[in-house]
Amino acid sequence: MEELCALIRQPSVSAQNVGVTECAELVRRLMSEAGAEARLIPTPGFPVVYGEARASGAKRTVLIYGHYDVQPPEPLEAWETPPFEPSIRNGRIYARGAGDNKGQMFAHLKAVEAVLRTRGRLPVNVKLCFEGEEEIASRNFPAFLSAHRKLLAAALVYSSDGPMHPSGPMVYFGCRGILYLELTAHGAKRDLHSGNYGGVAPAPAARLCQAVASLWSGRGKVLVSGFYDRVRKPSPADRRTLRTIPFAAQSVREDLGCLPVTGERGRAYYRQLLLQPNLNVAGLTSGYQGPGMKTIIPNVARAKLDARLVMDQDPDEIEEKIRAHLKRRGFGDVEVKRLGAVPPSRTPVDHPLGKAVVRAVEQAWGRRPVIVPNLGGTIPDYLFTQVLGLPSIWVPYAPHDEANHAPNESITLEGFVNGIRSTAVALFEIAASSEGG
Amino acid sequence: MEELCALIRQPSVSAQNVGVTECAELVRRLMSEAGAEARLIPTPGFPVVYGEARASGAKRTVLIYGHYDVQPPEPLEAWETPPFEPSIRNGRIYARGAGDNKGQMFAHLKAVEAVLRTRGRLPVNVKLCFEGEEEIASRNFPAFLSAHRKLLAAALVYSSDGPMHPSGPMVYFGCRGILYLELTAHGAKRDLHSGNYGGVAPAPAARLCQAVASLWSGRGKVLVSGFYDRVRKPSPADRRTLRTIPFAAQSVREDLGCLPVTGERGRAYYRQLLLQPNLNVAGLTSGYQGPGMKTIIPNVARAKLDARLVMDQDPDEIEEKIRAHLKRRGFGDVEVKRLGAVPPSRTPVDHPLGKAVVRAVEQAWGRRPVIVPNLGGTIPDYLFTQVLGLPSIWVPYAPHDEANHAPNESITLEGFVNGIRSTAVALFEIAASSEGG
Repeated sequence: MEELCALIRQPSVSAQNVGVTECAELVRRLMSEAGAEARLIPTPGFPVVYGEARASGAKRTVLIYGHYDVQPPEPLEAWETPPFEPSIRNGRIYARGAGDNKGQMFAHLKAVEAVLRTRGRLPVNVKLCFEGEEEIASRNFPAFLSAHRKLLAAALVYSSDGPMHPSGPMVYFGCRGILYLELTAHGAKRDLHSGNYGGVAPAPAARLCQAVASLWSGRGKVLVSGFYDRVRKPSPADRRTLRTIPFAAQSVREDLGCLPVTGERGRAYYRQLLLQPNLNVAGLTSGYQGPGMKTIIPNVARAKLDARLVMDQDPDEIEEKIRAHLKRRGFGDVEVKRLGAVPPSRTPVDHPLGKAVVRAVEQAWGRRPVIVPNLGGTIPDYLFTQVLGLPSIWVPYAPHDEANHAPNESITLEGFVNGIRSTAVALFEIAASSEGG
Repeated sequence: MEELCALIRQPSVSAQNVGVTECAELVRRLMSEAGAEARLIPTPGFPVVYGEARASGAKRTVLIYGHYDVQPPEPLEAWETPPFEPSIRNGRIYARGAGDNKGQMFAHLKAVEAVLRTRGRLPVNVKLCFEGEEEIASRNFPAFLSAHRKLLAAALVYSSDGPMHPSGPMVYFGCRGILYLELTAHGAKRDLHSGNYGGVAPAPAARLCQAVASLWSGRGKVLVSGFYDRVRKPSPADRRTLRTIPFAAQSVREDLGCLPVTGERGRAYYRQLLLQPNLNVAGLTSGYQGPGMKTIIPNVARAKLDARLVMDQDPDEIEEKIRAHLKRRGFGDVEVKRLGAVPPSRTPVDHPLGKAVVRAVEQAWGRRPVIVPNLGGTIPDYLFTQVLGLPSIWVPYAPHDEANHAPNESITLEGFVNGIRSTAVALFEIAASSEGG
């Protein structure tokens, strides 16, 4: 606990370049003290803290990912105690980085140390790879991974980040991807008086609505030709897993203020949310948006589209299909601009090493974790599965209400301790698995 | 000129209640001095200045409309000379109200006075009805007209307001109407994370686009059932008139930055703009509208729709048809709110008294005026044609660049003098018309 508090006290705000270099050195020292051969590997930005703890004769290697940089602490006045002064109350450590990600990252080091101290040796080789730029979009991490594929070779990537399920421990196996596009329809060179020009001037706002509307059927099915082509059928294991995710229809209903579009059943809910793609309008803007009337023909209209993609959809291919759809429907004049993309990424829920991890988490917590085939949201899991080509499994140790990126961020003491246990037991379960590379 | 300058010096800003009552009294005095029996008729707001100049034995009566209130003068620093201190330069009088509407209104009084002084009697009875709340949406004027139908009985309403055609004098016979609606699609009770809810939460922004898009065919034809039912076929006179309106394809193109949707021909342009209705999206708003990505499912989406209506479309009926259309297309959950409506209004371009007015304007200016069947925009002409049930003809005396409602408003001396001539000659031409009630 004292060491964790020391780590938390060292600010490491990558967005503000506050203390990150000092923190990297501290993490390297802590990693060494845990028993790994640790070093800093420079990148064009902040260094990766990399370490290895070899187990002579072990046939498997586990690559553990984490990050030592944190979000900016602002707004400072919203914190009950100072963000870089850890405060222990209500069974939690409150501080910037307590949950995201220092507490979770540090649990891995303590797990390695605990195994080494009590057993003398690790059951698997452990590689520790802690990034310093996760909160600034991991801008140098993809190149780092590409450049160090061999160094990072492993049977599995094991990561702890983000919050657990509200009901407790959770293991997840990937995420949906994202493709974020902006559609723009252009009209005259300026807004026009709708009385003086209505009927003779181009109408980009109506046109944008038509282009956007053409993307779905009336029932919400995406009409972009080929959009669903690569969507994987859920495996039997996926289907079994969906049934086991807790679903409280009543609380979802209260949260949304309405019934979800999939109705009252959890399986349909999770199938749609996790294993189906979705095309969403995240924003619309054109012309007059204030109260009352303004009679103009806007000269530009924009829509932000965010597509959540599932395996094996490819953002580049989906973008091409959307462009082709718009052209085919006669909206070739509507400009399409990509604002961002991350491919979907998954490791099968019945991967043997995944099963080993689930067993470990169950032992560590004394209860079966919630197993989620993948997140509905997007994390850069493809870096591990596609760039490194490794199975990747996520076991968060922070509570569901960790307030990551927000004031009064926290990790529970229980989560931290059970996190250490989870990593430690996972190393043994992974070593003991008869399959899994 | 001295009298006009005195009238302009008297502020009468209805929106700010500055000098309006004093101006009403001044207008009443000027009206009396012109030879009419003038009085103030109170309304719940500012009074109407009403006057009659009877012509013994005349069989026709002309009702002349104008308004003595003006727009606020702000921003004051943008005026080259003080707004209520008329400045004569470049052949124009610059001042707030010079064009809108004091200069035009006063020309009518001078015309009556000139005829009385030179001929001893008027060729028609003249009723003068000058409103004091035009710039605040004529809020008490409809009730005033309803209450004084008998007092205001006439063969014709003659009004001078707004700017002339860029090429010179103009006579127009009405306007398109307007129906302004706001469509709102509702979703969850708050914006949602598009990763955590995409596919299971309602999607009001996509839905709004679909509802709005359903209103037109791909080629821009309004698909609302019955929308065009009451659209009048252009009369032979309308068709002839459209051909005579000057159309400079090149300058329209420069103004828009693109070719109008009707192509390069003036007749198609004006037919679409003046004699066809139009349904326009004046604004769209939903979710995130800033730069870059924000991954939300917005919980509300809104569109502002402005429909320009032509004879004999009725705003109430069109609103009903749009509501019915949305229901029939499955968008019964999209909320429809009316923000405003003014019916279309027209007097036939070949009305005998219209022909008389055109002849008068031609004599006054020494050139044939541009004849426009109606404006593309909307003015409350229906008050005259529908509430009073009278033909209504508009002859603006202010230049096309009068800068009404803006700093450095002006009327040309030529426009003012030819305005006096136009009104005076019109009285004779109207008297001489063998038809026209």
